[in-house]
Amino acid sequence: MRTGKLCVPNTTKTMKAIVQRVTKATVTVGEEQITSIGRGLCVLLGISVEDTQKDAEYIVRKILNLRLFEDETGRAWSKSVMDRDFEVLCVSQFTLQCILKGNKPDFHSAMPAELARPFYSSILENMRSTYKPELIKDGLFGAKMQVHIQNDGPVTIELISPTGPVDPKQLSKQEKQQQRKEKMRSKGPSESGREKGALRSRQDPNASSGAEGDVSSEREP
Amino acid sequence: MRTGKLCVPNTTKTMKAIVQRVTKATVTVGEEQITSIGRGLCVLLGISVEDTQKDAEYIVRKILNLRLFEDETGRAWSKSVMDRDFEVLCVSQFTLQCILKGNKPDFHSAMPAELARPFYSSILENMRSTYKPELIKDGLFGAKMQVHIQNDGPVTIELISPTGPVDPKQLSKQEKQQQRKEKMRSKGPSESGREKGALRSRQDPNASSGAEGDVSSEREP
Repeated sequence: MRTGKLCVPNTTKTMKAIVQRVTKATVTVGEEQITSIGRGLCVLLGISVEDTQKDAEYIVRKILNLRLFEDETGRAWSKSVMDRDFEVLCVSQFTLQCILKGNKPDFHSAMPAELARPFYSSILENMRSTYKPELIKDGLFGAKMQVHIQNDGPVTIELISPTGPVDPKQLSKQEKQQQRKEKMRSKGPSESGREKGALRSRQDPNASSGAEGDVSSEREP
Repeated sequence: MRTGKLCVPNTTKTMKAIVQRVTKATVTVGEEQITSIGRGLCVLLGISVEDTQKDAEYIVRKILNLRLFEDETGRAWSKSVMDRDFEVLCVSQFTLQCILKGNKPDFHSAMPAELARPFYSSILENMRSTYKPELIKDGLFGAKMQVHIQNDGPVTIELISPTGPVDPKQLSKQEKQQQRKEKMRSKGPSESGREKGALRSRQDPNASSGAEGDVSSEREP
């Protein structure tokens, strides 16, 4: 159905995180700079009315473990923010829970502020206890802010929590299964070129940049 | 199916745009600043292998017409970038076409650079001819860049092109139908409160900020 196709991407109620790899990022409220980070990730986090602890756990795990950084030898997409001891700046961003009514954004899918505030705090707490508390920075929930993002690459990833009731243990298992399946598939003739492409780009010192031209070998179908 | 639920959001191949409302934005390559905008939108654009002219037309129309700005009286979510004569900085961002293999990003869903380059140029051309060419700025396709984004609010919207073969004329009609349906619904008793909420926040001079606390009345279910 056409209507279904049109609406599905924007109306699915899941937690959304826009993860930008940054050289630095700061938050100012009025004239005052309230926080800043150096190299790491700037995360804009949109919580939906239907999100639960499980969505939060998935998103936190992905933010902290996503391999968006090069290693010390310049091999791209090999290290996470935790691996490199980099920082995370997290800012609540309800506008990510947007449904378009024509050209007007509608935010009724976003968790109301009075519920989102403690939930968001618990997500930050989870991130701090999983990683190092001093490396997790925060905006000012509910305030009008200027978020200065120096997107490095640029590299931007969208994270969406799995919908529906999924057991987090089950999820990890599932992810492992997916990885195993990928490895199996890459042994097939049609996939070996792809794998080689990935290896090529890993060995390419320029590939550390993550910019368009540099990883084109990874992008070839 | 659990696997389906887990994979669907990240594997659907559609054009994606992360639209950030900005006070200013600049792009530097090495030490050189190659472009900049003042108030307006910074758009990170991810083109998938399956995208067509129709996806591009939808995304361009939405970028230019989305009501993310306040009007001269401070009424929030009422004016588009075109209405306010603001600028657009567009940067190609293939990493938005990311499929996670465990914690490693895979970019095979992104359109290969040699095809994406002319396609991306045509999208910019479309934007320039629809709006004012001098107000549409561009990064440097394929280069390693630092994109300095001063996200104002913050306000960040994700746009996803409709999947499948949709006639753009049909799409506009469909959008109009949706709007009409919304208007009809808002006359019902359960929706009138919502509409009032929207009006309240429109009349609130602080609501122009688009920040969490300010538009909470719009967010109440």
